[in-house]
Amino acid sequence: MEGLLARWESACASSGVLRFVDINLRGFGQVMFQDNPLSGALFLAGVAYGSWAGGAPQVVLAGVLALVVGTLTAQWLHADRASLFAGLYGYNAVLVGLALATFVPAGPLLWAYVVLGAAVSVVVMLGTVHVVRGWGSALTAPFVLTTWLLLLADYGFAGLAGDALPEAGVAMPYESVAATRVSVGAFLEGVLHSISQVFLKGSAVAALLLLAGLAVSSVAASVFAVGGAVVALVTAHLFGAESDLILGGLLGFSPVLTAIALGTVFHRPSLQVVLYAILGTVFTVVAQKALNVALTPLAIPALTGPFVLVSWLFLLPRQSFSAEGGGAGEDSASDA
Amino acid sequence: MEGLLARWESACASSGVLRFVDINLRGFGQVMFQDNPLSGALFLAGVAYGSWAGGAPQVVLAGVLALVVGTLTAQWLHADRASLFAGLYGYNAVLVGLALATFVPAGPLLWAYVVLGAAVSVVVMLGTVHVVRGWGSALTAPFVLTTWLLLLADYGFAGLAGDALPEAGVAMPYESVAATRVSVGAFLEGVLHSISQVFLKGSAVAALLLLAGLAVSSVAASVFAVGGAVVALVTAHLFGAESDLILGGLLGFSPVLTAIALGTVFHRPSLQVVLYAILGTVFTVVAQKALNVALTPLAIPALTGPFVLVSWLFLLPRQSFSAEGGGAGEDSASDA
Amino acid sequence: MEGLLARWESACASSGVLRFVDINLRGFGQVMFQDNPLSGALFLAGVAYGSWAGGAPQVVLAGVLALVVGTLTAQWLHADRASLFAGLYGYNAVLVGLALATFVPAGPLLWAYVVLGAAVSVVVMLGTVHVVRGWGSALTAPFVLTTWLLLLADYGFAGLAGDALPEAGVAMPYESVAATRVSVGAFLEGVLHSISQVFLKGSAVAALLLLAGLAVSSVAASVFAVGGAVVALVTAHLFGAESDLILGGLLGFSPVLTAIALGTVFHRPSLQVVLYAILGTVFTVVAQKALNVALTPLAIPALTGPFVLVSWLFLLPRQSFSAEGGGAGEDSASDA
Repeated sequence: MEGLLARWESACASSGVLRFVDINLRGFGQVMFQDNPLSGALFLAGVAYGSWAGGAPQVVLAGVLALVVGTLTAQWLHADRASLFAGLYGYNAVLVGLALATFVPAGPLLWAYVVLGAAVSVVVMLGTVHVVRGWGSALTAPFVLTTWLLLLADYGFAGLAGDALPEAGVAMPYESVAATRVSVGAFLEGVLHSISQVFLKGSAVAALLLLAGLAVSSVAASVFAVGGAVVALVTAHLFGAESDLILGGLLGFSPVLTAIALGTVFHRPSLQVVLYAILGTVFTVVAQKALNVALTPLAIPALTGPFVLVSWLFLLPRQSFSAEGGGAGEDSASDA
Repeated sequence: MEGLLARWESACASSGVLRFVDINLRGFGQVMFQDNPLSGALFLAGVAYGSWAGGAPQVVLAGVLALVVGTLTAQWLHADRASLFAGLYGYNAVLVGLALATFVPAGPLLWAYVVLGAAVSVVVMLGTVHVVRGWGSALTAPFVLTTWLLLLADYGFAGLAGDALPEAGVAMPYESVAATRVSVGAFLEGVLHSISQVFLKGSAVAALLLLAGLAVSSVAASVFAVGGAVVALVTAHLFGAESDLILGGLLGFSPVLTAIALGTVFHRPSLQVVLYAILGTVFTVVAQKALNVALTPLAIPALTGPFVLVSWLFLLPRQSFSAEGGGAGEDSASDA
Repeated sequence: MEGLLARWESACASSGVLRFVDINLRGFGQVMFQDNPLSGALFLAGVAYGSWAGGAPQVVLAGVLALVVGTLTAQWLHADRASLFAGLYGYNAVLVGLALATFVPAGPLLWAYVVLGAAVSVVVMLGTVHVVRGWGSALTAPFVLTTWLLLLADYGFAGLAGDALPEAGVAMPYESVAATRVSVGAFLEGVLHSISQVFLKGSAVAALLLLAGLAVSSVAASVFAVGGAVVALVTAHLFGAESDLILGGLLGFSPVLTAIALGTVFHRPSLQVVLYAILGTVFTVVAQKALNVALTPLAIPALTGPFVLVSWLFLLPRQSFSAEGGGAGEDSASDA
């Protein structure tokens, strides 16, 4: 695989077209933190399958269109080369395209919305990078912010009004339902759906392609993805969340991303890191439920907002977890 | 005009009273970014006309009272002299006064509210300046934040409860109405109202005075104001927004400010800057609609919040747009 | 008293158990900014009394459990020693425990929620310290953010659904009621309840214990606490707020904290500081009402969010209030 990637890289170095393809594949890969064109290709295959199998081929098309627009916008704005080549201006655009095509009905204005959202997501990315410098990264915040604004606005635009969005209402106490016993098969499906919902798809086949894409780049990342999904499902079940949501992966995709981020991207795995990642993953389930409730009056989905919120909260302390400890020692909490 | 301003400046230098007048006129001017007492005088004339013609003379009085209170508060807090003399501690206070008198019924408590809001807006301004240092400016964020809190609170205060505020409700999908053909006259009126609504007035005469005030200080600013209004109206119409809102200028005032800010205040006009400003202006229409929807459950108006949000998002990348490009190059997007 | 504290300190220095007790007592003390174990012991006594007298002994137990979990979490994460020993990783956890046990019904999941919330509040504290460095401190922001997420989430968890939470609804204009004349006795009770509600208790006896705890550490702090409560009550009454809320202390606890913070913690008392603190305290009443309204659709309480918001707004300018003035002079407000 190393040899294959090396040959691909040298081919890209001598061809502008291949380089452009490479940048966009890496953009797909960065949705799950992988700076690897093969990961990106497998992620794209998973999304294409999920999109086609779900009877909504326009979703993957919107994702690809948004990705290309995002990359071109970044080039137009002279974004820094290293980040551009690593696909870092593409992954938010991909998600904007997938989300808009999922929640807004197909039509000419959808495509205008996808192009606008993709371009703006790059501007937001360029800015967010400045805000988080020193303690973290932009994660999918540009996607979440841009898409929330676009989806909120479409309630007021006759040309766009979505029909796949949740209904508005005030927050209501949860109606307790008879607890359903969850079979092993359903549980495994829930784990896989939690992974595929990172790309807004509920598909076991897509999830397996995504896991393959993770594994070719980082075995640890694939292990933390599955572990994060398991932790999320168990937590949600113990707290008494709705089995439908749990098994559809709708409470698990943000925790999956938190687990990968805290466990493998920003720290090297160790016992303390695993425990820290578990604490973050469990709290992401809480944050997912909290944002679902908080957004009820606005009738928009939480997207990966809970992942961004909790990961930022857990990255801000800049815990080092190095061998000797030391932790947050350099800075005192000063006065209360 | 240069000679007139020079003589005025030397008169101010030798008279504390004239200096105080000058500071307050510049405070009016800074609502649309103009550090120019003549602009401020024309803006004041426009607001006074709109206020009087609209049968609400207390609105302009509240604006002037708030401005004076704001300036005195800044002096009391030893705000830095250069910013004080440029009117930068006055423009948020002006807007607080205008907005409170627009949305809260007249009465003794309104005036207490105006004084309180104006003083607090200066404190918030002094703080916001620290937050945005390095990449932007406070814009009208102190006005928006202070006024949102005051208007939200007045629901719980018997002495103040407003009757000009929107009604609360959960976000509802837009009811499509038969598209109305817009005449050229109505379109032009919509452009002018988009400009006068920056000062919360729907008046073509006021708008012409405001444009004159812009032009005496910066012809480019007046061109971008008109251009921003045109872009906003066309965008809102294409997306299918309500014609009432469009033609009343209620979807255009934030985009007008975004266009002036991105096109003339923080960058020098060039083709790329114009395109960047158009992208920001179009997205401000989206953000305006989004905040209108998001604030529906709270029954408060968006004010110039969409302008602040989108302008900050578009200023944060610190795009240089200098001849040689280079752009955001100095900082890499680091890892996703 | 000095001698007593000195002997206690030397005992702590030679005993890990006593040091742990000392850290936790100081954690209680830091809820009202006092780095003093005796203050903490008196605060604990006040909360225990209020909890027991209110027929909810689980509340104080949850506060103590959360405090211990918070301290252990801070040790596990190698938080810096000076802050740890000063109790700065404990006060948010105390409040998380008290709030959860107040709003969520007792049961096994409540205790899991308390442990989770206490641990996460320390992580959030470690991060918030970085954000506010240079101009302020974390205040109770980690408590507010963590608890809001947990309470929002519990609407979606059958195992937890709270019954002491406010009801959801859209924001509605205040229904004016006949003003009730407030007796001196009721007013005094309102002052005391405003102080005890800092710990979520409406109890005059608890308030007296809290005032004693303040006085043993800082007489100025106890004076500003009472003064802040008086200012808050008068302001709320003049604006026409509901007498029930006023006299129950529910509009006063955030202003009490603002008064202590702005008057004694971050500035040395002087005439200008007193006026600045009064302005902040009055505006905290507005912010309290505003957040009450804003959170209506979400059916969660504002907690001490208004105190955090207004204190941050008033600390951000970094006013020096030193003898010679100078104020915000070092930084200009740059352009609007």
